[in-house]
Amino acid sequence: MKCPMSSESACLSMESRASAAPAPRALPYYVAFSQLLGLTVVATTGAWLGLYRGGIAWESALQFNVHPLCMVIGLVFLQGDALLVYRVFRNEAKRTTKVLHGLLHVFAFIIALVGLVAVFDYHRKNGYADLYSLHSWCGILVFVLYFVQWLVGFSFFLFPGASFSLRSRYRPQHIFFGATIFLLSLGTALLGLKEALLFKLGTKYSTFEPEGVLANVLGLLLASFGVAVLYILTRGDWKRPPQAEEQALSMDFKTLTEGDSPSSQ
Amino acid sequence: MKCPMSSESACLSMESRASAAPAPRALPYYVAFSQLLGLTVVATTGAWLGLYRGGIAWESALQFNVHPLCMVIGLVFLQGDALLVYRVFRNEAKRTTKVLHGLLHVFAFIIALVGLVAVFDYHRKNGYADLYSLHSWCGILVFVLYFVQWLVGFSFFLFPGASFSLRSRYRPQHIFFGATIFLLSLGTALLGLKEALLFKLGTKYSTFEPEGVLANVLGLLLASFGVAVLYILTRGDWKRPPQAEEQALSMDFKTLTEGDSPSSQ
Repeated sequence: MKCPMSSESACLSMESRASAAPAPRALPYYVAFSQLLGLTVVATTGAWLGLYRGGIAWESALQFNVHPLCMVIGLVFLQGDALLVYRVFRNEAKRTTKVLHGLLHVFAFIIALVGLVAVFDYHRKNGYADLYSLHSWCGILVFVLYFVQWLVGFSFFLFPGASFSLRSRYRPQHIFFGATIFLLSLGTALLGLKEALLFKLGTKYSTFEPEGVLANVLGLLLASFGVAVLYILTRGDWKRPPQAEEQALSMDFKTLTEGDSPSSQ
Repeated sequence: MKCPMSSESACLSMESRASAAPAPRALPYYVAFSQLLGLTVVATTGAWLGLYRGGIAWESALQFNVHPLCMVIGLVFLQGDALLVYRVFRNEAKRTTKVLHGLLHVFAFIIALVGLVAVFDYHRKNGYADLYSLHSWCGILVFVLYFVQWLVGFSFFLFPGASFSLRSRYRPQHIFFGATIFLLSLGTALLGLKEALLFKLGTKYSTFEPEGVLANVLGLLLASFGVAVLYILTRGDWKRPPQAEEQALSMDFKTLTEGDSPSSQ
């Protein structure tokens, strides 16, 4: 934005108005739809475990059921919502939005950790082997990547050490790997669902048992939630607009690196 | 680019030079790596079917094995490569690149169709039920979406009827759904692999049978190929630069819609 030095205050107030622009008209509907899908995924997982797997408990054979429920709440629903924070909170201070993004990921991580402990503890108590299936290989990989991504994201964007230029260079990588880890989490959930179904139903799966049909619907819902979140994330015109404070920072940076005056950019 | 009317020919030659700019330095290495991964995926699928499933034939119980091989070649490797066409062929005429993109999808579709016929024919001959599993539901959905996406893409971008403005508005949707269908194809392949493994190995899967370990590795390779293709597709600075002809068209369009003169944009 060209801003003649004589009317700087007028320019700033224009920028503030621009940065408090209303969200794109269709965005709230898409976000609402994604939340409806996400809650339906969690509810359907609960219904599946309640109706066909005897519900949930820590100290019994039902301990296994803690695993799918925690993973769906943590690494599907909350992880997806953490990615959407920058699309939903468009006019709040960048730092507040960052903290919310980081916190949602912390909640997701803790819930997923409970789910992980549940399955290892269940295996140990029953003498089952660990980490032999594709689901478990993908799951451990995703969990480690998720932790590393959080640590690196925290040290670059929330810890006050990293320079503006370092943040700018890391940001696209953080976004790409964030979306990728979310998609890998969804793929891992689908593999786990399939594994749980086939171990129990075996060839009965092909007779359209009600549990099989419900689990198939759950699988489609999981995939649909992923597509909805990805669509909202990748729509170019729905990206969070840069705020006045960020524009000023970006100008300062341009000035420092290119020797330009902020008003001539 | 500002181009004073007095030196139009100089400007045009500058544009030609710009449009024949060399590819970003790292891009060829990433593309080579993705191709290595893709070929390894196809080879590992062949090795799995050859070593543990008796190989491939149409008129026998081996007919089933045609299905995974065709799906991996068509809906994973070729579909992925069709998406990469615009990153690899950066300086060729837009129309040539489009035709190659469309043709690769046609090959992928035909090979996938053979794979689909193989599994339905195998089921019919053996009296097995069709379309009961999550893998089959996702598979049919992906196959139909792939066909519709191709048809709509063809009528917008290759059939000479659609206007420039219609194409511009449809392009982001085409790109999003193209990438989504590719990811859904990969997810479906992983579900199918898991299904084939569990039906045959059952509880022996947990004893680290060589077939199980090879199939797990194949699963990780499939996921890695997806991540590699997605990374190349989404790197903003690796997008195909607009060519002189497209810039001219875009200027004409701007002129028509905004009443601007091409040289003043």
